[in-house]
Amino acid sequence: MPSTSLDSIRIEIEDALADFVKGKTEKLNRTDEFLQPITKSLAEYILDGGKRFRPTFAYLGFLGAGGIASPKIARACAALELVHVCALVHDDLMDGSDTRRNRQSIHRQFQDHHRDSKYVGNSENYGASVAILLGDLSLAWSDELLYLSGVEQPQLNQALPIFHEMREELMAGQYLDVLESVRGESNKVRSSKIAQLKSGKYSIERPLQFGAALAGANSTLIDDFSNFGLALGEAFQLRDDLLGIFGEPNVTGKPSGDDIREGKRTLLIALTLEKCNESERRLLEISLGDKNVESSKIAAIQEVISRCGAVEECERLISELFDKAVANLDKSVCLDEIKKLLVDMAKAATQREK
Amino acid sequence: MPSTSLDSIRIEIEDALADFVKGKTEKLNRTDEFLQPITKSLAEYILDGGKRFRPTFAYLGFLGAGGIASPKIARACAALELVHVCALVHDDLMDGSDTRRNRQSIHRQFQDHHRDSKYVGNSENYGASVAILLGDLSLAWSDELLYLSGVEQPQLNQALPIFHEMREELMAGQYLDVLESVRGESNKVRSSKIAQLKSGKYSIERPLQFGAALAGANSTLIDDFSNFGLALGEAFQLRDDLLGIFGEPNVTGKPSGDDIREGKRTLLIALTLEKCNESERRLLEISLGDKNVESSKIAAIQEVISRCGAVEECERLISELFDKAVANLDKSVCLDEIKKLLVDMAKAATQREK
Repeated sequence: MPSTSLDSIRIEIEDALADFVKGKTEKLNRTDEFLQPITKSLAEYILDGGKRFRPTFAYLGFLGAGGIASPKIARACAALELVHVCALVHDDLMDGSDTRRNRQSIHRQFQDHHRDSKYVGNSENYGASVAILLGDLSLAWSDELLYLSGVEQPQLNQALPIFHEMREELMAGQYLDVLESVRGESNKVRSSKIAQLKSGKYSIERPLQFGAALAGANSTLIDDFSNFGLALGEAFQLRDDLLGIFGEPNVTGKPSGDDIREGKRTLLIALTLEKCNESERRLLEISLGDKNVESSKIAAIQEVISRCGAVEECERLISELFDKAVANLDKSVCLDEIKKLLVDMAKAATQREK
Repeated sequence: MPSTSLDSIRIEIEDALADFVKGKTEKLNRTDEFLQPITKSLAEYILDGGKRFRPTFAYLGFLGAGGIASPKIARACAALELVHVCALVHDDLMDGSDTRRNRQSIHRQFQDHHRDSKYVGNSENYGASVAILLGDLSLAWSDELLYLSGVEQPQLNQALPIFHEMREELMAGQYLDVLESVRGESNKVRSSKIAQLKSGKYSIERPLQFGAALAGANSTLIDDFSNFGLALGEAFQLRDDLLGIFGEPNVTGKPSGDDIREGKRTLLIALTLEKCNESERRLLEISLGDKNVESSKIAAIQEVISRCGAVEECERLISELFDKAVANLDKSVCLDEIKKLLVDMAKAATQREK
């Protein structure tokens, strides 16, 4: 096997996305010139930034199962990023988030475009409509890119059930997440279960299994990747919980304390509510989900979450889960050269600042 | 070939949808009991009513190309209905429509559910979020149902490019439709082009071609179906334009004059603006897109549209396009037994009351 690095995988995935998006943009612009604002915006969104965790895990799952790298595989793995773009565009709309990857979210871009163009009707509705349609388009494209990847049918047929499962788990997990925030109750068991569906499985376990299936892996490796991916996925989500409260806005591309504003019932919040006193609890409960919460309150809540020991416990859990994931990986039948890259990815997923 | 009727096709499609939805509902409810409200609502939405135009045209395209009816084909054609459910759920949300098929639209159902359950946060946002996610789920399911249909891979590979094209045209057409309503200009050329993308191609031409491709049809029949489908699609859309203004609410399941409230820039509206006088034009322009337009104004606008001759011209166009479609069908290489059923469908598509 030629030597592979995370950088070279990243380049292959970027190239696959860029090629696909270029073809689509040209085709749609030829269909109707009025489509230019959306093709431009969606192309920029897809191509500009993003950690590419899901396609990278998929690619590593493929290589770890003994597959030989090729542009076909890069294209198939890149399809997962288009699912993710749908999830992000729609998530930002549902959460009313203004920014993503340090840029305006899609619905805000088109809300402004409506206002600046002096269009008739409601700018917010227009922004929301465009975001809905562009998320849908990206989701439809994910199938098309996978289909057009050039991966031979028997391999594709092994991977498609995992692809379908992953998308269903994502939507179900997103719904449960939204439900949990409106139910206004924090519960460690529920928080963990939801995090597992919408993040652990979707971001790590399923992509790894998808890649392994593309290489025709047997069930032993598929199970091994589950053992690695679920533990790592939980750690990944806990890091997300911490970044959602303490992340640096200019690094995360999201405002500070964003999860408080959005009322996210994360495991970090559940741990905090277990540990804090009654008045701190009241502060947290009235602030969670308050879109206009003052920055002084966010600072006070950050202080509560740190002081009560929830951050420490979260960091301890991340570290334990990381160790468990790596130990599971060690025992796995994944190729050794790829194990090293997966450990690097595990570090990137759990020690990241965005 | 055993004798086939539109009724028997309808039953096969309903069965295919019911089976798929039952399996999905059971699986998701086992995954998490909190998913029950959405599985129930989405199952009812998919299974309750609907004209099933797209799957029926697809099935007829398949039979017309000499294919032999089977449950596999019913499943593959039923996948088109799941694309359509995504389009409807998201369209209702974008338009702020309260009802669909005489039931509450999905976003309104969950808005009420939020309020009745005394959940925290904003009821409208919650309803919108659930509608976004259920539309996404239905779109993802459309691929899965097609993949699981059991249709052999070579046939599927012939039909998939058309399936992908159809979904892209739908999203592009929907965007152009939204754009046209906020640009606030009526233009016959633009109205026709958008109607062709979002309705003609999506509802009739592509489904027919998709079905024909499943039967391995040659390019002659694919082109023949285009000649039939595009003319019929245009007539179908013109009937939609008339129903959007004059439809009986208790038949269409939508409020009277819905297109006025939504500011739809249809060909009917473009024709009216061409024919009416200046004060009528002003009445129309201030009412189009006004969510709170009074019913007296709607009645006055209906009167204007009728009196100026736009309805008459629309009916004349429908009739001409119907004749043209049928003439094209006559000349086509489609099997004769199926031509008869396609003419029945053409009547249903252009003479319907909902």
